[in-house]
Amino acid sequence: MVPRYARPEMTAIWSPESRYRIWFEIEALAAEAMGQLGTIPAEDARIIREKGQPRADAISAADIARIDEIERETRHDVIAFLTWMAEGIGDSARFMHQGMTSSDVLDTCLSVQLVRAADLLLADLDLLLAALRRRAEEHKFTPTVGRSHGIHAEPTTFGLKLAGHYAEFARCRARIVAARAEVATCAISGPVGTFASVDPKVEEFVAARLGLQVEPVSTQVIPRDRHAAFFCALAVTASAIERLATEVRHLQRSEVREAEEFFHPGQKGSSAMPHKRNPVLSENLTGLARVVRGYATPALENVALWHERDISHSSVERFVGPDATITLDFALARLTGMMDKLTVYPDRMVANLESLGGVVHSQKVLLALTQAGLSREGAYKAVQRAAMATWTKLAEPGGQSFRDNLLADEEVAGKLDAAALNAAIDPRRDFRHVDTIFARVFGG
Amino acid sequence: MVPRYARPEMTAIWSPESRYRIWFEIEALAAEAMGQLGTIPAEDARIIREKGQPRADAISAADIARIDEIERETRHDVIAFLTWMAEGIGDSARFMHQGMTSSDVLDTCLSVQLVRAADLLLADLDLLLAALRRRAEEHKFTPTVGRSHGIHAEPTTFGLKLAGHYAEFARCRARIVAARAEVATCAISGPVGTFASVDPKVEEFVAARLGLQVEPVSTQVIPRDRHAAFFCALAVTASAIERLATEVRHLQRSEVREAEEFFHPGQKGSSAMPHKRNPVLSENLTGLARVVRGYATPALENVALWHERDISHSSVERFVGPDATITLDFALARLTGMMDKLTVYPDRMVANLESLGGVVHSQKVLLALTQAGLSREGAYKAVQRAAMATWTKLAEPGGQSFRDNLLADEEVAGKLDAAALNAAIDPRRDFRHVDTIFARVFGG
Amino acid sequence: MVPRYARPEMTAIWSPESRYRIWFEIEALAAEAMGQLGTIPAEDARIIREKGQPRADAISAADIARIDEIERETRHDVIAFLTWMAEGIGDSARFMHQGMTSSDVLDTCLSVQLVRAADLLLADLDLLLAALRRRAEEHKFTPTVGRSHGIHAEPTTFGLKLAGHYAEFARCRARIVAARAEVATCAISGPVGTFASVDPKVEEFVAARLGLQVEPVSTQVIPRDRHAAFFCALAVTASAIERLATEVRHLQRSEVREAEEFFHPGQKGSSAMPHKRNPVLSENLTGLARVVRGYATPALENVALWHERDISHSSVERFVGPDATITLDFALARLTGMMDKLTVYPDRMVANLESLGGVVHSQKVLLALTQAGLSREGAYKAVQRAAMATWTKLAEPGGQSFRDNLLADEEVAGKLDAAALNAAIDPRRDFRHVDTIFARVFGG
Amino acid sequence: MVPRYARPEMTAIWSPESRYRIWFEIEALAAEAMGQLGTIPAEDARIIREKGQPRADAISAADIARIDEIERETRHDVIAFLTWMAEGIGDSARFMHQGMTSSDVLDTCLSVQLVRAADLLLADLDLLLAALRRRAEEHKFTPTVGRSHGIHAEPTTFGLKLAGHYAEFARCRARIVAARAEVATCAISGPVGTFASVDPKVEEFVAARLGLQVEPVSTQVIPRDRHAAFFCALAVTASAIERLATEVRHLQRSEVREAEEFFHPGQKGSSAMPHKRNPVLSENLTGLARVVRGYATPALENVALWHERDISHSSVERFVGPDATITLDFALARLTGMMDKLTVYPDRMVANLESLGGVVHSQKVLLALTQAGLSREGAYKAVQRAAMATWTKLAEPGGQSFRDNLLADEEVAGKLDAAALNAAIDPRRDFRHVDTIFARVFGG
Repeated sequence: MVPRYARPEMTAIWSPESRYRIWFEIEALAAEAMGQLGTIPAEDARIIREKGQPRADAISAADIARIDEIERETRHDVIAFLTWMAEGIGDSARFMHQGMTSSDVLDTCLSVQLVRAADLLLADLDLLLAALRRRAEEHKFTPTVGRSHGIHAEPTTFGLKLAGHYAEFARCRARIVAARAEVATCAISGPVGTFASVDPKVEEFVAARLGLQVEPVSTQVIPRDRHAAFFCALAVTASAIERLATEVRHLQRSEVREAEEFFHPGQKGSSAMPHKRNPVLSENLTGLARVVRGYATPALENVALWHERDISHSSVERFVGPDATITLDFALARLTGMMDKLTVYPDRMVANLESLGGVVHSQKVLLALTQAGLSREGAYKAVQRAAMATWTKLAEPGGQSFRDNLLADEEVAGKLDAAALNAAIDPRRDFRHVDTIFARVFGG
Repeated sequence: MVPRYARPEMTAIWSPESRYRIWFEIEALAAEAMGQLGTIPAEDARIIREKGQPRADAISAADIARIDEIERETRHDVIAFLTWMAEGIGDSARFMHQGMTSSDVLDTCLSVQLVRAADLLLADLDLLLAALRRRAEEHKFTPTVGRSHGIHAEPTTFGLKLAGHYAEFARCRARIVAARAEVATCAISGPVGTFASVDPKVEEFVAARLGLQVEPVSTQVIPRDRHAAFFCALAVTASAIERLATEVRHLQRSEVREAEEFFHPGQKGSSAMPHKRNPVLSENLTGLARVVRGYATPALENVALWHERDISHSSVERFVGPDATITLDFALARLTGMMDKLTVYPDRMVANLESLGGVVHSQKVLLALTQAGLSREGAYKAVQRAAMATWTKLAEPGGQSFRDNLLADEEVAGKLDAAALNAAIDPRRDFRHVDTIFARVFGG
Repeated sequence: MVPRYARPEMTAIWSPESRYRIWFEIEALAAEAMGQLGTIPAEDARIIREKGQPRADAISAADIARIDEIERETRHDVIAFLTWMAEGIGDSARFMHQGMTSSDVLDTCLSVQLVRAADLLLADLDLLLAALRRRAEEHKFTPTVGRSHGIHAEPTTFGLKLAGHYAEFARCRARIVAARAEVATCAISGPVGTFASVDPKVEEFVAARLGLQVEPVSTQVIPRDRHAAFFCALAVTASAIERLATEVRHLQRSEVREAEEFFHPGQKGSSAMPHKRNPVLSENLTGLARVVRGYATPALENVALWHERDISHSSVERFVGPDATITLDFALARLTGMMDKLTVYPDRMVANLESLGGVVHSQKVLLALTQAGLSREGAYKAVQRAAMATWTKLAEPGGQSFRDNLLADEEVAGKLDAAALNAAIDPRRDFRHVDTIFARVFGG
Repeated sequence: MVPRYARPEMTAIWSPESRYRIWFEIEALAAEAMGQLGTIPAEDARIIREKGQPRADAISAADIARIDEIERETRHDVIAFLTWMAEGIGDSARFMHQGMTSSDVLDTCLSVQLVRAADLLLADLDLLLAALRRRAEEHKFTPTVGRSHGIHAEPTTFGLKLAGHYAEFARCRARIVAARAEVATCAISGPVGTFASVDPKVEEFVAARLGLQVEPVSTQVIPRDRHAAFFCALAVTASAIERLATEVRHLQRSEVREAEEFFHPGQKGSSAMPHKRNPVLSENLTGLARVVRGYATPALENVALWHERDISHSSVERFVGPDATITLDFALARLTGMMDKLTVYPDRMVANLESLGGVVHSQKVLLALTQAGLSREGAYKAVQRAAMATWTKLAEPGGQSFRDNLLADEEVAGKLDAAALNAAIDPRRDFRHVDTIFARVFGG
């Protein structure tokens, strides 16, 4: 976790305090279930909650240091925690963790943390979607050039660009919802998952209270294909961030200048060059996307644990769990702010759209010519001829627009007069289905 | 694609013949839609289908060579195909591809291929699930030792092991179903996705006929977050394969020998050592899992295309599309056969289970002692003491079982007599919830 | 391997014919060494070579089918090959492979193949370096704008850009040389690498004849850290390709047009838009780079084989070995051709360089002002003020150049008069050290 | 960075204090060089050093908070640092950073940090190599079974196993040395690397003082292929760690028990099962290896920066730089301690070696039979027959050893009598070349 790329709410999920509180909640709920079942005395379950809850609520840095100290001796984190808890709860503490194994606590805790993290990410995505929708509607009919291969292709609108990103993030949201369900399970099933010493009803009780499902088969651990799928969903979302960030980086480059990240008063673009206004947010997001994406691979490697479990996944998750969720949360929020405040230059968009003399209308002329009876092959050659003449000579003396080059071409002129050509390249044709697309994306 | 790891049905999906047939189907359907809408003459649409269909159906290696030849001149694959089609269809061919762009054909074709591939993978998974269920039920109560960290933990059953893998592959199946839906979209929206020269109704018509959804916003291409999610789902499935393969590799190792891959008559395990019977299938599956998993990263890197599209994803998909699906199909089939014929040695399972003198019952003794009034800490120390004595001295003269060591321990004996100890470690306790777990996995 | 991205010489290294010839060479050399040592009769070693060599030289598709047939029975590739060889060699064949294990043949063969592949890659790099050097010298003083963050920064030369890429590929060449040495080892050490049944002198003999080093400790297999390092070197090279490809893609984009991939007569940029000339080669290279890079991860996962070896690496290498080398070979050759024929537009470079009214000289003015006594902070603000005024208003009525804005600024004008300002932004300053850099890269 | 997996010395390299001290050193050296060259007044350079050095030496948390505060306004880290420095240095500070760009400081600082990190890793590797050598020599002739595919193959020694790992880590050491050289460069070349406003002699001066090479062509940044190669070298080393960790995990598993991680007094293996002694260190190392390996991919993706640079690499490096080096440092130290204290059980090794009735000698019998005149094919079948009989029936009544089964086989007995068989399987044959291998690895 890099503090610079971390926000407090997500970070708090992964703090020791938070973890120990969840551990206590799991242990206390399990004790309550066992108390109801008569596995342990109900009175002791009550005392565990009563004395343990304030201890968990008020856990301090000193307490954590004490737990760490016990862990240094026992070399076992859950035992260290239970020992510390027992120091406050007293004799009833011996009924905590009855028939359970550490992973019952650790894995269920991880589920709770990942579910909370997913909820924050979903909230982040809602804000991002709202910002994208607002900007998309604002620029629904702002003309701009669509580019394939970085080359001007045909007109589109800036709103359509944003609608596409909106749709992509809406899919990411659905993936995070699915990923949340993947990891929202609880296991309280004992050392190899057989419930040999703990009743399955305990698991059901704890799961229900924590808003989780029971894990159908746990084997000391919750199976790691769930977590791998979770981190893959984050990786796809990170890649979607990179796509939008890359778009903004392109739009801001000096030769394009169709949009620009907000430049704060007092901000300095470069220590050397006072003239610089750089798309640093979107570049930063590009890097953060690499980071989050990179965590999918170790998460996938975590799946093939040995037999009922080995603990190799644990160290991986101490990195990947916090780092992937904290970084993605930060990135989504940064992207939202960036898109919210993005300065858009519609005039530059029009200027760029027109800068190649109208060749962006080549397909429409091609179609008009084939409709007028030219073979596809012949029409293609005629239009390519006029387009290349436009492109390569536009800035030179005698250079003329695509339209003029077409009208000067005998083969074209034999099929289309000026009026027919004008009709073919009428810009209103380009945007007549924008409403349809918006309706598909945003509804009705 | 490595022929050794490829099966014909999945391979066929990716053949040039198959691709060109899908291309024709898309073009012919689009022409039919345009014919209905009056964009092109209905008669020409009819001729395109009538003359083109037999050409597509009978496409030969010579035809493919001819298309390749045209591509070498035009350096454009779809134009090469259309030119070749036009050679057979004649004049009506100029109404093919009207207002469309190559990616309309290419991307919708890829959708069709990935959907077909997903269907094969789902069929593979169904066979695997059936095999796993059969073996799980066969060994529902076959006792074996559960191992955490590779160390004997507590008794479980071989059926429970398999039920866990069944549940994991059932989740993988659900993920492939979701992944199939991710990529099951159709785009016929023109050069930058604005439908400037093609009616959205054409897309709706083609999508419906191909069993696809329309892509809400395409930008010449179908957005690649869909494909990234698809290949991630494959990567998770590959990792699940690796987990089961790893289990079999462990079970077959010389010191364990609890299960063994079927050894064919005539098979040779080693060119040097005639005694060898190696788990080569499961090792092979481990490697194939690495391969399939490795394709997730380039697929994720494919998402951030420039502006409305660049073509960098295309070369990646020429590898990843066939290789990931063909390899996973092969791996699933190999795994199914392997599990179907796996030789299981219940006697060895029992022998291993008992080989540590009964220390696998340590938790149950721990619980009995705490129930009998010892502190958790005190009980832990007593049981650890007896277990370590058992473990380290079992094979030595005077070494004795865990049970005997416990009874010889004063602190333990003060709390539990032989009858109480026997009750605590009664093996029937271990499997009393197997039915519950099976019901969770396979239904009541 | 995707045929479209494969060249014959590299592909041939990985053909079955090639592999079986190398296997024979290893077996024949080992027999000759054993013949000299007296482990086997020298006469039989002679016969193995005499009868086996023509069989290996003339190996046909039918032979390969026969070997495959034997493998289907034995399920062991090396035994199948030896059996087929024995059919031609006769009785002496029983002295082949004496005391050896399959991996002695397989791993040493892989070493030979990877060394040959590395040699081709080095030759590819030499051609690329030559092309880059030629173009770098051609454009040593072609002015162009240097861009950080996609934003105009300061003037540089197109030759300097290329010199940087040259230096990067020179480093890649050194890495491939090192990677070649990593994998250039021979193991003939028997089932677990102890030389229990084969004399280490055999390994020394074979290694020397094949131009390899002996592997200090093999354990049936040559350790896979070597191969991982090899594929990592390829991955870095692929990333260097991506960097140059990305540069060309940027230079060709419509708003920049400073360079362009050669456009072949007859080439069609788009099926829909006849005006298109797309940077398809560099985009393709970007994708191929992702593919080659992706193979590093499974190669790294191959390192941790179990005990003296497991065979999980083998299936991975059947993909990664050919695919990574063939694809990288193709990509390097494509890049070389692309750079060789790249169309460069110096006029556009100058036009772009000047398009922002001279703000690219901001640092030099900043320095002149601090030298003239302004505080760094004060100078920065003054220059930023003039630059922003230039940038945002250049195209508007009354917009003026950076130089004019500076002279109109009281604080600046109080420190620098027109002559001093002209001296500060004299473009000759920018390129005075180009010779130094070229000497560093290409030598004095 | 996860504190649990971090050691102080490596962590300190990446602290803000450390970074700012290196920044100051670079700025002060550059100023001194400029003072010598007369670019700035020598007196000011002297003052920069004199007043700045104590400020850098004594940098406190409060100072860092002050720098952060300035950065929040300027949104530029280097400018914030320079502003803070200027607060202490006074007027001469305006001569700091003359003609330089932020990356001159940032990238050269990163080089210094990575070089220091590499030095610590090399020291770690030296300790690991020493431990491995000591244990290898201790167990040079400790017999143990070599296993391929997890199946008993032939005898080897535990010392040979360790010698192989020693050789692998010696290669890793060489790779880290090469990786250190990759990143040991200095760039002080200005905004686009042209030295337009800073003399190349400044770079030479600073590089020499810092023990770095000059970067032949920098383009504002030091090219990232260097860093990618660096992190790949770390990834290979991590994979080597995983291989040794996996070996130990296997050796400790309950059925093998040939070696065991040191179990501390007071250590608890499991919260549930007091009998557990788990190989938690080696499992942990397996996970840490995944983490370090995972950082290679984003480092490779960092190479293709746009034009002269974009800043997307920066956020990646804030994770990867500290996390990969700190985690690898921790892992190497943990591995060293683990190997140093590894409990080895030679008796169990012998017991396992003999547990399959001697079939591990099958190749030697195969060779003896072929030497005695049987065809390879015939000998293979005879030996396989006896081996399978041994293996499958050893534990049953009437089961007998491989030797006895061979002698009872008519075909074998016709070729080899008891004495000849004994000679063939004489265990002294197995280890006669151990000295040779040790000499190859450890020298003479």
